Amino acid sequence: MKKTSLPLSQVYRLLEPGPVVLVTSARGGRANVMTMSWHMMVDFEPPIVACVISNRDYTFGIVRETKECAINIPTVELAKKVVGCGNTSGREVDKFKKFRLTPAPAARIGAPLISECYANLECKVMDASMAGKYNLFILEVVKAWIDRSKKHPRTIHHCGQGVFMVAGRIIKLPSRMK
Amino acid sequence: MKKTSLPLSQVYRLLEPGPVVLVTSARGGRANVMTMSWHMMVDFEPPIVACVISNRDYTFGIVRETKECAINIPTVELAKKVVGCGNTSGREVDKFKKFRLTPAPAARIGAPLISECYANLECKVMDASMAGKYNLFILEVVKAWIDRSKKHPRTIHHCGQGVFMVAGRIIKLPSRMK
Repeated sequence: MKKTSLPLSQVYRLLEPGPVVLVTSARGGRANVMTMSWHMMVDFEPPIVACVISNRDYTFGIVRETKECAINIPTVELAKKVVGCGNTSGREVDKFKKFRLTPAPAARIGAPLISECYANLECKVMDASMAGKYNLFILEVVKAWIDRSKKHPRTIHHCGQGVFMVAGRIIKLPSRMK
Repeated sequence: MKKTSLPLSQVYRLLEPGPVVLVTSARGGRANVMTMSWHMMVDFEPPIVACVISNRDYTFGIVRETKECAINIPTVELAKKVVGCGNTSGREVDKFKKFRLTPAPAARIGAPLISECYANLECKVMDASMAGKYNLFILEVVKAWIDRSKKHPRTIHHCGQGVFMVAGRIIKLPSRMK
């Protein structure tokens, strides 16, 4: 990967816009990829993220058990693979193989990262107490990677039923907001 | 408002893409507006939403006490007002007045809606048990309104420090994902 380390204080800037992400997890040498849009930042530093993983998803049990996963952020070039991962289950298929995604070793967790994604966030589950009631996990991002050659990553944002909004123009306004 | 009721089953399609929203709340006849980006869907129907409201924000106490708020979704035309609301506190200013936002009565809650926003979600707090530890509230959307004349609303998505991504082109891919 031609990626470099991203300071953890900057992680919120990647997730706050609300992109579709690919969650990778692994158990017993078997890795999986899940498409996810239900995530939000909870704190800046250390970066805390909340996400919802349905208990019907193969990933749910793996994340609850291994207490680890990675959040990989794709751009529009990967849209078809992203939908493919959303339409299949890791119970039946090896999604890395089926959708030709390249696993890359993580630094702090066992789950592989997706090389084709422009950013990768290595996460540890810090609180699964809401997983039973809401399928909600609280994650801490412990390591972040980014491809700095992507100046304006065209992330995709799911509007439901296979309709995606592609990240458009950037505007800057004088702001005191972090 | 020339808005019509939106079926609650469609609410996720508005929040899942991750737009910046304006949270309205009211207590003792005094209404406030807060800019928020940290939200996610938790369930489809009834639509359950999780959001993070800092305990330093004036809105935090109002929402915890009244157990109500509205999520108003602005488009790029309102970007300056959105940043203005994010840079000021309701403790000192009446943001409806200062930023010339028009309050509209809600159907199911006491907090006013923002007329200028293309969609408004009336919410009741269903779980504040994580407000102490994570500033996290679980909301149920009990009524939703939308301006159907806005075919492709240019929502704004915060990338941090006053940098916003404006909703770009729409792509559709054959998908079994809801």
